[in-house]
Amino acid sequence: MRLARVAHPEGVAFVSVEGDGADATVQEIADHPFGKPSFTGKRWPLADVRVLAPILPSKVIAIGRNYAAHAQEFGNEVPGEPMMFLKPSTSVIGPNAAIKLPPASSRVDFEGELAVVIGQPVRNVPAARAAQAILGYTIANDVSARDLQKSDGQWGRAKGFDTFCPLGPWIETSLDPADLSLKSEVDGELKQDGRTSQLVHKIPELVEFVSSVMTLLPGDTILTGTPEGVGPITDGQSVSITVEGIGTLTNSVQNA
Amino acid sequence: MRLARVAHPEGVAFVSVEGDGADATVQEIADHPFGKPSFTGKRWPLADVRVLAPILPSKVIAIGRNYAAHAQEFGNEVPGEPMMFLKPSTSVIGPNAAIKLPPASSRVDFEGELAVVIGQPVRNVPAARAAQAILGYTIANDVSARDLQKSDGQWGRAKGFDTFCPLGPWIETSLDPADLSLKSEVDGELKQDGRTSQLVHKIPELVEFVSSVMTLLPGDTILTGTPEGVGPITDGQSVSITVEGIGTLTNSVQNA
Repeated sequence: MRLARVAHPEGVAFVSVEGDGADATVQEIADHPFGKPSFTGKRWPLADVRVLAPILPSKVIAIGRNYAAHAQEFGNEVPGEPMMFLKPSTSVIGPNAAIKLPPASSRVDFEGELAVVIGQPVRNVPAARAAQAILGYTIANDVSARDLQKSDGQWGRAKGFDTFCPLGPWIETSLDPADLSLKSEVDGELKQDGRTSQLVHKIPELVEFVSSVMTLLPGDTILTGTPEGVGPITDGQSVSITVEGIGTLTNSVQNA
Repeated sequence: MRLARVAHPEGVAFVSVEGDGADATVQEIADHPFGKPSFTGKRWPLADVRVLAPILPSKVIAIGRNYAAHAQEFGNEVPGEPMMFLKPSTSVIGPNAAIKLPPASSRVDFEGELAVVIGQPVRNVPAARAAQAILGYTIANDVSARDLQKSDGQWGRAKGFDTFCPLGPWIETSLDPADLSLKSEVDGELKQDGRTSQLVHKIPELVEFVSSVMTLLPGDTILTGTPEGVGPITDGQSVSITVEGIGTLTNSVQNA
């Protein structure tokens, strides 16, 4: 199932997205999409609703340097254990919303990533049971003020500006994430072309590791790291990240 | 006003705490404590309720190396701009709850801090207007797995374990935070003895800086940094942090 969150003529709701292209429709889900969702019976053409971030996570946990070739492009080693940092929930935006370039930075980069959305409250999940903790997978852009990331040491500011965590377009609940193509384009030009099979620390291991530190709540989102090819985005550009089996997350870029 | 959150015989509520010692009582607040709270008329002796974390923040922003003598005790420079990192909301516990020492670390430290609780949604607050954005002040313990903090580089794991953010015992809404005594004791032995006047980046500047990066929501909490004298805590100990004009935050320490 493709789970989305949309603004429709009567309000905001979780929906399932059915069909493709001009014929795609959305079916409204009652309450929330965790567990077995029930439907209200309301349905709209996808073209008539505005797609929002598919989830508003209580926390976003991101993993740094989790593709060897990306770690190397900045001269870094791949860490023996996953390197965790947090992005604030206020950094989340949905598809087609604008990434705002803050005046404090003169170099903001896109980073295309596969994101894991947690489906139930969990703590200390063994890797072998990680799949049961996962609601599904979406696409993230771990937008990063590269200059501030280097000068600050800790990444709380560089990765934490409002609009620096585009998520979407939806959560695919039936997907094997082990070997998916991940491509990023800026204004239609291919910049990243990786596969999730290149993840150093795989998704089951990440769920085990993160949940050994902190309780994960429904909707909490783990960004799994970015492949090589990251680079700057500037005012007026458009950045699109495509993950096989999910779709494409596109955001415009503006000066704040 | 001293704003607390308590478990009372009929449920959980925000309250105001009135009086001191054995005569102290709590008055129940209707709904939430933001804006002008209204009271339900229900009242209990403080001794008959369990005091919880005074707020469940949507995010906890912490400032590193913000007392010169503490930065020096680990051989670090004071950063020219505030160094920000995030602690997850799942790390928050209340007074008297146990700090759990995770097996992944062999050195967990206390860090006593003054915490600022935000009172309304704000973005880009100038320092001169910071006071209007603040609900009040409480006490925090920025518990840190010192070994993992050094080895991981990013502090997401070392500062993010469940129970690593004790807050409380309440939020004092009428307080000048410019020059308050801050003392930490482990099993009654004085370990930290600082004053908030030693903060390198002062509270109005911190509110301006953090809110220039991210939207702050009611209840969001900024930990302002710790003075010198941090050190390890071990199974069976008790750690107390006292800030003049607020009170004392005490937590036991246990192996997880």
